[in-house]
Amino acid sequence: MGMNPTVKDIAAKLNLSTSTVSRALTDHPDVKKETKRLVLKLARELDYQPNPIALSLKKNRTYILGVIIPETSISFFSKAISGIQEVASKAGYQVMICSSHDSVDIERQNVQTLLNSRVDGLIISVSRETQDVNHLARILDKRLPTVFFDRICEELQSTQVVADNFAITFRATEHLITTGRKRIAYIAGPQNLYNSRKRLEGYKAALQKYKLPIDDDLIIASHYEGENVKTYTDYLFNLNRQIDAIFAINDRTAIEMIHLIKQRQVKVPEDIAVVGFNNERFSAFFDPPLSSIDHPAFEMGKTATELLLQHIADDQFPIQKKVIKSDLIIRESSFKS
Amino acid sequence: MGMNPTVKDIAAKLNLSTSTVSRALTDHPDVKKETKRLVLKLARELDYQPNPIALSLKKNRTYILGVIIPETSISFFSKAISGIQEVASKAGYQVMICSSHDSVDIERQNVQTLLNSRVDGLIISVSRETQDVNHLARILDKRLPTVFFDRICEELQSTQVVADNFAITFRATEHLITTGRKRIAYIAGPQNLYNSRKRLEGYKAALQKYKLPIDDDLIIASHYEGENVKTYTDYLFNLNRQIDAIFAINDRTAIEMIHLIKQRQVKVPEDIAVVGFNNERFSAFFDPPLSSIDHPAFEMGKTATELLLQHIADDQFPIQKKVIKSDLIIRESSFKS
Repeated sequence: MGMNPTVKDIAAKLNLSTSTVSRALTDHPDVKKETKRLVLKLARELDYQPNPIALSLKKNRTYILGVIIPETSISFFSKAISGIQEVASKAGYQVMICSSHDSVDIERQNVQTLLNSRVDGLIISVSRETQDVNHLARILDKRLPTVFFDRICEELQSTQVVADNFAITFRATEHLITTGRKRIAYIAGPQNLYNSRKRLEGYKAALQKYKLPIDDDLIIASHYEGENVKTYTDYLFNLNRQIDAIFAINDRTAIEMIHLIKQRQVKVPEDIAVVGFNNERFSAFFDPPLSSIDHPAFEMGKTATELLLQHIADDQFPIQKKVIKSDLIIRESSFKS
Repeated sequence: MGMNPTVKDIAAKLNLSTSTVSRALTDHPDVKKETKRLVLKLARELDYQPNPIALSLKKNRTYILGVIIPETSISFFSKAISGIQEVASKAGYQVMICSSHDSVDIERQNVQTLLNSRVDGLIISVSRETQDVNHLARILDKRLPTVFFDRICEELQSTQVVADNFAITFRATEHLITTGRKRIAYIAGPQNLYNSRKRLEGYKAALQKYKLPIDDDLIIASHYEGENVKTYTDYLFNLNRQIDAIFAINDRTAIEMIHLIKQRQVKVPEDIAVVGFNNERFSAFFDPPLSSIDHPAFEMGKTATELLLQHIADDQFPIQKKVIKSDLIIRESSFKS
């Protein structure tokens, strides 16, 4: 045990979970009296100093964070939830997740439901349909601590956590251009979403920097649905533009495209280079291993939650905009040395 | 429009969502008076007949279903949630999801939180740590409609939805044996979980049927964590048992193992056949394409929710145990014709 004993030290000594200890220290109603007594006694003996967040904790909390995301089955969001959960658990908070199923109607209901459950704060990534943001503005008016992440609303004055969508897509496109590619197809996400828009801008900016034409026929407006991958691939081949690279919206799409390209006896990466997005666990094991963007989903969930907890602890918490860096992982699908 | 107008027909005519119409028909407080008036007027005009579930709906509902699962980032659970969400949305219900993070402490808190939110019913898959089930028995004592799925508690008298774990693992093992495999390694899940136990039983029963020895050294107790795949693979090769097949706990493990096996210049399936579990979207696109169990995650979520809604509508709903069939998808990783 170091100089400053932590919640973890107390938990280990008493054979309790860290979340029980955190809750005991903040006088949470769910913890038994006897447990509280033991925890407080040991905390005094060890001269435990709570951190600033714990110090400022007030009563009347529910110790519940509400989360609204479009879809739990999208791997980005399920990883982000793991990050949210990790930070929340350590701080003695529970997480209540609602999925909007990418519907603005359900998103409105989700907001109401989580407010009714008196959550201490909200973490939100908006649905694909969300254009009118009145229901979200209403939360901010109530001064309920709220953090938006990934799919944010630019028009709302609130704390936000986003990836460096523009910069990383620029970089990946530049990688393709500087390794000799000239006709790069781009499978884009829905353009009413902030992150999809920024990424498409990054792709276009890279083409412009290298004085390559922006060919709208090579930009496919996808809807994140896997079913159309064959249609996209057939379309690109039927264009007769001799594309030499594809930058796909996610790894699943990229991998299915590589499969379809190989079926046509076209070689990856010799004839067509392919880059994905998300760097899924399985992407390194393909043939060829897939180049991809390492999208910091877990990190974004963690950061959003840390900011939210700071906001909950401090009424005067200033609005913050955090950008989490992505990474370009170059493997054989885009470049063979 | 057919003979019996549906909620969908009413929704289309009024340009409303089906969930708004469902809620208007059951006098849900969230729906505006004017909307309710319009819906009821049209329902009368079309002679709309609500289905038995809608008929028996009572007041004082929150129209929220609570879900407790171990981890949203496990693909089985994120798919199951999609199934839950689909049925719930259509019935005008919202879903509130808590992840226990595979901790029984958090699971206990989740139960309390969802009860505090006055959910109309619960869908639960227990944590890896759950042995003492008092907190779950308490829900049943309260007569709150509850359905367990996948990771169920055999000792609790409640409605359950499970996959045919024993039968499908038996079948996959039999497939390996009848195509000539004799030393089949098995990467098992945590044995305190119902589904992992049943699957291991299926594997052993198939070996017994074909009078093959059960070699405990070939059974690896895994913990669903991807980090150990290399350790498992090294272990199996160091055994010097000349294993000729591997049945892995999930597709991610299977795919990483194939990658590691190929690095050793050993051929799949010629030298070692590999079968995975879950039939992930990407598994068909590997080299070789992966044989796998199509685990009916979405279907299980749907069925659990349908049973829960029936239970909510009917106090006298009898306890049911539903088994959802899995499928064995044979691809080149286990058999080359």
